[in-house]
Amino acid sequence: MRTLILGGARSGKSALAERLAGAHADVVYLATAQPLDGEMDARIAHHRARRPAQWGCVEEPVELAAALRAHAAPGRCVLVDCLTLWLSNVLGHEDETLFERERSALLSALPGLSGSVLLVSNEVGLGVVPMGALSRRFVDEAGRLHQALGEVCERVAFVAAGLPLVLKGPPL
Amino acid sequence: MRTLILGGARSGKSALAERLAGAHADVVYLATAQPLDGEMDARIAHHRARRPAQWGCVEEPVELAAALRAHAAPGRCVLVDCLTLWLSNVLGHEDETLFERERSALLSALPGLSGSVLLVSNEVGLGVVPMGALSRRFVDEAGRLHQALGEVCERVAFVAAGLPLVLKGPPL
Amino acid sequence: MRTLILGGARSGKSALAERLAGAHADVVYLATAQPLDGEMDARIAHHRARRPAQWGCVEEPVELAAALRAHAAPGRCVLVDCLTLWLSNVLGHEDETLFERERSALLSALPGLSGSVLLVSNEVGLGVVPMGALSRRFVDEAGRLHQALGEVCERVAFVAAGLPLVLKGPPL
Repeated sequence: MRTLILGGARSGKSALAERLAGAHADVVYLATAQPLDGEMDARIAHHRARRPAQWGCVEEPVELAAALRAHAAPGRCVLVDCLTLWLSNVLGHEDETLFERERSALLSALPGLSGSVLLVSNEVGLGVVPMGALSRRFVDEAGRLHQALGEVCERVAFVAAGLPLVLKGPPL
Repeated sequence: MRTLILGGARSGKSALAERLAGAHADVVYLATAQPLDGEMDARIAHHRARRPAQWGCVEEPVELAAALRAHAAPGRCVLVDCLTLWLSNVLGHEDETLFERERSALLSALPGLSGSVLLVSNEVGLGVVPMGALSRRFVDEAGRLHQALGEVCERVAFVAAGLPLVLKGPPL
Repeated sequence: MRTLILGGARSGKSALAERLAGAHADVVYLATAQPLDGEMDARIAHHRARRPAQWGCVEEPVELAAALRAHAAPGRCVLVDCLTLWLSNVLGHEDETLFERERSALLSALPGLSGSVLLVSNEVGLGVVPMGALSRRFVDEAGRLHQALGEVCERVAFVAAGLPLVLKGPPL
């Protein structure tokens, strides 16, 4: 089962994903954050503090498809938190061909993975169109990625105020 | 049947509208975009490339009510893509009375149109309040327009990750 | 019954809350706006003009928990419009300890209130992450507040185009 969990900033999407992951005995947390500044450090620490100690943890800011292939396994749940930071990492990379390669690799890898995969991502396209061309590109690629994932995931949920709304697939 | 399709940037709302229009033998695509810059040109070309060749196409950036009255017909589906650009065109027009007139004309015209009408529009009011007064005005008028359309349309759907959520009316 | 009504700018959330309040004989409108500028004055006047004359009205920009405790009563409906302005008032206050105190007071007060309470709040976290650290803080605290309220409220609705979508609790 592949589940995409979409929601706004501080909507409770990570907490929901962690609750879902908690139903599995074997969980690998796949973190895409790069601790580049104090604000991000604080967020990473905040997320880490509430995860069970027995969960595995892998950090992979860029090569997400390879990491998923390496860690997904029958009976295991891999929780990717979050796609937004990965997208930001690959879109902002100095190698401009990286984004298309990593995006294709992710979309190709997902259908063949064993076990459960939970993908957490920020919905960012519901405000005014941002001024900067880079921000517009980011919003566009995030939206396109979510559409593509909406096809390959068996379940898609939208979270607001910590409450999920299932857009596709079985109830949570 | 009048259907309003709301969604964020790259949420898949146009693709959904095109899928719904595809169920009709006679379709007129009513484009509101004005190809003023390269970025917009690319978006217009991207939308055009995936539309069936037999669909009629009308371009009308401002006088939307008149265009709808001219082209709606029994057994035909008119797809308006999108209200957001039309709103931007009429709000930004040098004739400051144009917006109220065109807005009233649209809301008056809709209930009397024959056939099917699909209206695609961007939800833009779910981010932080924008800094500029013009952007705030745009967000406010988009929200008010959607509320008014929510009353005169028989069906309203919200799209995320390409997946529709029906807020009003029969399922899609 | 405690109901949280979330929605974007001009989504029709206040109109929905007023419609729900209208089912009660005894209504107190608890306004959190501070009429500091002309734009806000116009919004306050717009909201006031459509409220029934017999509703009580209380203005409290900061001490929301105390105002709720003072005015909630069996058989009465208190409509708080809106939490977003209150959050902005307490986050921006010169006393930096005020926010945490008022937030805790609100979350502690809510479960014990008599009668009906309707809380209107803006969803602001579904656009791109804002540039300014203050705006990011605001988005984060709004999201966290909504999550906490999502737990203590018996009903949560998300409004778009004037149409509610119930995320928790009985239908509207």
